[in-house]
Amino acid sequence: MNRKDLLDCHKRIKPYVHNTPVMTSSAINKIVGAPIFFKCENFQRAGAYKIRGATNAIVLLTDAQRKNGVVTHSSGNFAQALALAAKSLGITAHIVMPSSAPEIKKAGVREYGGNIYECEPTLAARQAMANEIGKKTGAVFLHPSNDEHVILGQGTAALELLDQRPELDFIFCPVGGGGLIAGSSLAAAYYGKNCLIIGGEPFEADDAYRSMLSGKIEGNDTVNTIADGLKTTLGDKNFPIIQKHVSKIVRVTESEIIVAMRLVWERMKIIIEPSSAVTVAALLRDASEHPVMYKDKKVGVVISGGNVDLDSLPF
Amino acid sequence: MNRKDLLDCHKRIKPYVHNTPVMTSSAINKIVGAPIFFKCENFQRAGAYKIRGATNAIVLLTDAQRKNGVVTHSSGNFAQALALAAKSLGITAHIVMPSSAPEIKKAGVREYGGNIYECEPTLAARQAMANEIGKKTGAVFLHPSNDEHVILGQGTAALELLDQRPELDFIFCPVGGGGLIAGSSLAAAYYGKNCLIIGGEPFEADDAYRSMLSGKIEGNDTVNTIADGLKTTLGDKNFPIIQKHVSKIVRVTESEIIVAMRLVWERMKIIIEPSSAVTVAALLRDASEHPVMYKDKKVGVVISGGNVDLDSLPF
Repeated sequence: MNRKDLLDCHKRIKPYVHNTPVMTSSAINKIVGAPIFFKCENFQRAGAYKIRGATNAIVLLTDAQRKNGVVTHSSGNFAQALALAAKSLGITAHIVMPSSAPEIKKAGVREYGGNIYECEPTLAARQAMANEIGKKTGAVFLHPSNDEHVILGQGTAALELLDQRPELDFIFCPVGGGGLIAGSSLAAAYYGKNCLIIGGEPFEADDAYRSMLSGKIEGNDTVNTIADGLKTTLGDKNFPIIQKHVSKIVRVTESEIIVAMRLVWERMKIIIEPSSAVTVAALLRDASEHPVMYKDKKVGVVISGGNVDLDSLPF
Repeated sequence: MNRKDLLDCHKRIKPYVHNTPVMTSSAINKIVGAPIFFKCENFQRAGAYKIRGATNAIVLLTDAQRKNGVVTHSSGNFAQALALAAKSLGITAHIVMPSSAPEIKKAGVREYGGNIYECEPTLAARQAMANEIGKKTGAVFLHPSNDEHVILGQGTAALELLDQRPELDFIFCPVGGGGLIAGSSLAAAYYGKNCLIIGGEPFEADDAYRSMLSGKIEGNDTVNTIADGLKTTLGDKNFPIIQKHVSKIVRVTESEIIVAMRLVWERMKIIIEPSSAVTVAALLRDASEHPVMYKDKKVGVVISGGNVDLDSLPF
C-alpha cells in the first residue's frame, strides 16, 4: 500500500462519500493551547467514516464477485456503512448481527436495504454464520478493519484532512479494530509534513496500547467502556502498519470520555459518539501532560462518527 | 431600513461574526419532499444568531456612548451575545438576569466578561433594574428584538443564506420577540427572488400568530413550551415589518417540537435548541399539509441556535 494506492483509492470512492468539513472551536483551542482541526466524519454518509473502507472494498470487487454480493458481521457502524455502500453500488449486502444489537442499528441496516441475519452474541457464532452465508450465496466476506482495501479507504479521511490543512503536526484517531488508525498513519506518512499519528483508547479496552508494548496482538479481558466502537482488537493486516507509523497510544478513563463528549456537544454543537470522544479526551490528556509538545503546533482530530442512541446518554 | 442599510450592516458586523455554514440532509429532504438548506447559526459565536444584532447595535454607538457601555435584560441567548459582542469591541456590558435563570446561562455571560445583576423573575423587575443601571452608569439600553439596529443585524443571517443559496423559494424562521423574522423578511424582500418568509411558533406561545390575525400586538396567556427562546412577544418596531413581509406563521405542538429536535440531532448530528426545532417542526407540518406547495421548491431554514441544557433534555 503505497502513496499512489491511497490516492487511487480516494479517486475511486470520491463519488460515493462526502468530503466532510473541518471544524474548529476557539473554546477548545483555548483549553488545549493549540489550534485544533476536527475532521467531521460524524457528518459522513451513514454517520461514520466506515463507508469509506466499505466503498473501496466493494468497488474493487470483480464483476463476478459483485453478482454474489458481500457479507460481514458487525453490531455497529460497519453494518450500516456496508449496507449503504452496497446499495449505492447496486449489490447485495448480507449483514450478520448479534441478537443483542440495538434495534436502532438494525433499523439503519434495514433502511439501507441490507439483509440482516441474527445470531448468538458471540464472535464465534458471528463468524460461523458469516462463513455459512458466504458458502451458500458466494458473497465475499469483508472484514470491518483487517482488510487492506478497507484500511486504505479509512485512510482517505486523514488524506482529505491533510489536503484541507497541510500543516498539521499531529493527527489524533480512535483505535478500535485498527483500520482507521492504520489508514490514517499511511496518509500521514505519505502526505504529512512530519505529521505524527496518536491513537486514543479507553483504559477499559486498551488492547492496542498493550499490543504496542508487547509487540504482538493482545486481546481485551474486559470491555467495560461506553465507547462501543472500540471494543474490538487489532488484526494481522493493520498491526504492522500501526507499529511502524503510530507514535503512541494515549489511554483515557470513562469519565474523561464523558467530559470530552459533553465538551464537544456543548461547545461545538455537534453530536459525536463516545468512540470519538475518546480521541478528544486523549488529546486533552496528552496536551495537559505535555503542554510544551503542543506549543505553536497544529493538531488534527478525526471525529470518527456521530451515531449515538439518544435514549441512553451518559448525561 | 432599506436594501443598502442591510448591506452596510453586514459589512459592519462581518469582522465580528461567523459566516455560518449551510448544511443539508438527504434524509430530511426525503421526508419533506424538497431540498432543504439549513443556515447553521447554532455554530455562530455564543451559539446563536443573537450576536449579529448585538454587534450591529454596539458598533453604531457614538464614542461618547461607548464609554458608558450597554445594558440589557435577558435570561437567554441575547445576554451571552451582548456580553461577547461588547467584549469583542472593548466596551462594558451590564446584563440584568432573573434570579431564576439557569446557572449555565449566567456562567456564559460571566465567561464573556459581562456584569450580571440579578433581579426578581418578572418583566417589570427586569425593566426597572435595567433602567436604574442605565441612569446610574449612563449605559445605553439595548432591546433584544425591538430595536432597528438589532433587527437589521439579525437579518444578516438570511442575507448570507440568500447569498449562499440565491434560488430559495421559502425561508423558515422561528418567531419569538420578532427581531430575527423581521430582519429575515427584509433580507428576503430585498435580496430574494420571490422568496416567501414563514414563521414557526409553538401553539403554547402563539402570540405572533394571533397578532397577525388581529392586526395588533397580542400577548401570551401561557408559555408552557420547551422553546424557551420563543416566550417573548412582538414589539412596535418589528411588528409592522412582520405584517408587511411575512407570509404566514405555522404553529406546532410540543411533541412536534421534540420529534423535530430529535430528527435533526439523529440525522444531521448537530445540536439545535428547542426554539430551532420549532422552525423545523413548522416546515414538516406545512410540507405534509401542503405538499404541492413545496414540489420542486427550495427551502431555507434558519437554525437559530444550539444552546441546550444537556441536563434537562426532552428525550
